[in-house]
Amino acid sequence: MNRRDFFTTTALGGASSLLGSSLVFPETAHANASEMFAAVPAARMKLSFKPYTLELKHPFSVAVNTRTTTPVVLTTIEYGKFKGYGEASMPPYLGESQESVMKFLSKVDLSKYDNPLELDTILSAIDAIEPGNTAAKASVDIALHDLAGKIMGQPLYNVWGLNKEKTPNTVFTIGIDTPDVVRKKVREVDPQFKLLKIKLGRDNDREIIEAVRSVSDKPLVTDANQGWKDKEKALDTINFLKEKGAVLIEQPMPKEMIDENAWITERSPIPVIADEAIKRLSDLIKMKGMYHGVNLKLMKTTGLREAHKMITVARAFGMKVMIGCMTETSCGITAAAHLTPLVDWADLDGALLIKNDAFKGLTFVDGKITLPSAPGIGAVPR
Amino acid sequence: MNRRDFFTTTALGGASSLLGSSLVFPETAHANASEMFAAVPAARMKLSFKPYTLELKHPFSVAVNTRTTTPVVLTTIEYGKFKGYGEASMPPYLGESQESVMKFLSKVDLSKYDNPLELDTILSAIDAIEPGNTAAKASVDIALHDLAGKIMGQPLYNVWGLNKEKTPNTVFTIGIDTPDVVRKKVREVDPQFKLLKIKLGRDNDREIIEAVRSVSDKPLVTDANQGWKDKEKALDTINFLKEKGAVLIEQPMPKEMIDENAWITERSPIPVIADEAIKRLSDLIKMKGMYHGVNLKLMKTTGLREAHKMITVARAFGMKVMIGCMTETSCGITAAAHLTPLVDWADLDGALLIKNDAFKGLTFVDGKITLPSAPGIGAVPR
Repeated sequence: MNRRDFFTTTALGGASSLLGSSLVFPETAHANASEMFAAVPAARMKLSFKPYTLELKHPFSVAVNTRTTTPVVLTTIEYGKFKGYGEASMPPYLGESQESVMKFLSKVDLSKYDNPLELDTILSAIDAIEPGNTAAKASVDIALHDLAGKIMGQPLYNVWGLNKEKTPNTVFTIGIDTPDVVRKKVREVDPQFKLLKIKLGRDNDREIIEAVRSVSDKPLVTDANQGWKDKEKALDTINFLKEKGAVLIEQPMPKEMIDENAWITERSPIPVIADEAIKRLSDLIKMKGMYHGVNLKLMKTTGLREAHKMITVARAFGMKVMIGCMTETSCGITAAAHLTPLVDWADLDGALLIKNDAFKGLTFVDGKITLPSAPGIGAVPR
Repeated sequence: MNRRDFFTTTALGGASSLLGSSLVFPETAHANASEMFAAVPAARMKLSFKPYTLELKHPFSVAVNTRTTTPVVLTTIEYGKFKGYGEASMPPYLGESQESVMKFLSKVDLSKYDNPLELDTILSAIDAIEPGNTAAKASVDIALHDLAGKIMGQPLYNVWGLNKEKTPNTVFTIGIDTPDVVRKKVREVDPQFKLLKIKLGRDNDREIIEAVRSVSDKPLVTDANQGWKDKEKALDTINFLKEKGAVLIEQPMPKEMIDENAWITERSPIPVIADEAIKRLSDLIKMKGMYHGVNLKLMKTTGLREAHKMITVARAFGMKVMIGCMTETSCGITAAAHLTPLVDWADLDGALLIKNDAFKGLTFVDGKITLPSAPGIGAVPR
C-alpha cells in the first residue's frame, strides 16, 4: 500500500489525527476534532484479550518464593485502523490470575465511548468497576495509551513532553540464590549493566553481597522484599550495605510494620524505598514521610496515568522515584520506560528475563534505556 | 488547496504527525518520529512577540487600584507550517511590564531545540534563565502547548486525556464600585452566569453584598484580595458571607500573614482559597495546610505545564482547585480553560471584560465553559 492509498483508506476509517492535522493552518482552519470523530460513526473501540505464559530463562527467587513462569494477559484495543497493545502480568503472590484478569476485562465495555482520547473518563469508570484488579486495569490503561499515541502520531514521551535522552540506566536484577550461582550470574551480566539489583531478605544477606563484590564493583540497588523482621538488625545490615556500595534499600520490613519502616527511614544512610507498601496514589499519600522514595510498577498503579500522577506527587513530597516492573513482555516494560525521563532509578529488566517475549520494544545501550520513537508505546508484536 | 496538495506540501514541511500517523500499522511500520524530525532539518522553532494593549469595557477596581487598560504581549512560535499562539498579561501591580516581558523573551532561543514536543527540557531551561518573569514564561509555555497540540492534530483536552463535557460554569466578576454601580452591573450579567464573583476588601463589604443580594440570588464567589487586616473581623465577615450565599472566600488577608490566614482557614464555614499567597508549585508545597484550596492563574504559574502539575499535587493535598485569570485575550483564557475539567471552580471571564479581544476561542453557553475542538488551544486570531 503506498502512502496515497493509505490516506484514501484511512481518511474515513478513524485516522482523525490526519484530518485534524490539516486543520491547524489559520488560512484553512477551522473544522474541529469533535466533528471529525462525529463524522466517523463506525469507529468504536473494541477490547480483546488473550492469556499468555512467560517462560523465565532462569527460575526466579525472591524472599517469599521461586518460579519458572509468569502468567500474563495480552490486550488489544482496536479503533478504526489503529491498534493499541497492553498487558497484565500476574506474579502469583499478588493475588491476580489470568482468570481474574479476563473476568474483569469481560466487564469492560469500551464501545460506549465516542472519544478514545478521553482517558480520564474511561479509566476512572474502569477503576470504579470493582476494587483491586490493578494488573487488569493496567492492561487497559497501557493499551489505551498506546492507542492514543498512535492516534496523535507521537511516541508517548512526546505526548507527555519528555526528553527521551533523559532515560536512566536500568538496573539488572540478580534473584536470590546460593552465593556460587549469584557469583556466576553477576559475572555474566556485569559488563552489560551499570547498576545491579540484589535481592536480599533471607539469612545469608552478607554472604550474598560478599559474593557479588568478589566479581563486581558496580553500584548496588538492594531489595529486602519485606524479608527483615527486626528493625535494629535491618539497620545494621543497611549500614553494611552502604559500606559495600549500595545506593538504596527497597522495602526493608513488611509493609504492615509502618512504624518500624519509618524508624529505619529516619536512620538509614541510603534512601529507603517503598515497594509493597505503596501500590497506588492513595497509598503514596498515606505513607508520606514513612519512606524516602517509592518504586512504581504499572501492575500496582493501574497503569501509566496514575503512575504519572504519582511521580508528580512524590516529587512534591520531596521523594525519590524508581520505576520497576514484574516479569513482563516488552509491551508493558516499554510503556513504563516512557516515564523514565522523570525518575531517579529504573528497574526495567523484566523482558530480559523471559525466553518468549511477544513484543519488540525498548533496547538497552550499555544499560541505558533507549526508547523506540514509533507512535504510542512503540512496542511491536514479534 | 485541495487535500492532496496539502499533503504534498506539508509532508516535507514539518507535518511530522501526518507521517507519524502513517506508521502505526504493524504491517507498514517502523520508521520513527525522531527520524521524521531529523528528516526535516529546515524546521526550527521561531519565537516572535509584540506588545498589545487591552482596553477594558469598564474601569476595573480591586482592593488596591483601578485601571482602564491592561498591557499584554502576544507571542507566536512558528515551526514549519505550524503556528502556536501565546500571551503574557501584566496587571501593573504584579511587577511585570511589556518591557520586562520583551526583554525576557529576547533571551529565549528556541531554535536550538530539535524537538518542539520536548516541553520538559525547553520549559525548564526557560524557567532557569532568571527568576520571576512568570507572565513572560507563561507566554512561551502557552504558545508551545498550542504548537504541540497542532503538531499532534488534537485539542489540548485530548492531549491531556480530559473530558471536555466536564468543564464547570465560569464565574463572572463584579469589580469594586459604589453599591449603585454594583447593583446595575449585577442586574446586567445575572441572567448569563450561574455564579458571580464579588470583589471585597474595602470598608463597605456588607453594603456591597446587600446591594448584590437586592438584585440576584446566584451563589457568590467572594474575594478579599488581601484587603482585610484583622483576623477576627475577617472571620465575622466570612460568617456573614456564608449566610448570604457565598461558596468560598479568596485570600482574606495579606499573603505574608500566614498564621492569620491559617487561623481563618481553621474556622471558616466556607473554603478559604489562596490566590496571592500561591503563585507556583513551590508555594503550593510551602503553604500546605494553610488554605483549603488554591486559585491557579497561568500568569502566576508560568503556564499550563506547571499549573497542570499543581492541580495533581493540590488534589493529593486534599485541596480544592480554582482556575482564574488576568484580563487576557481569548488566547490565554482558552488555554487555561482546557484544564478546567479538572477543577472545582473557574473564573475565566477575563476576555469578556475587554473591547479588543485579539482572538476567538472558548464560548460560554449559559455560563458553562465550552471549549473549541480545533487542535492546540483552538484560539484563532480575529
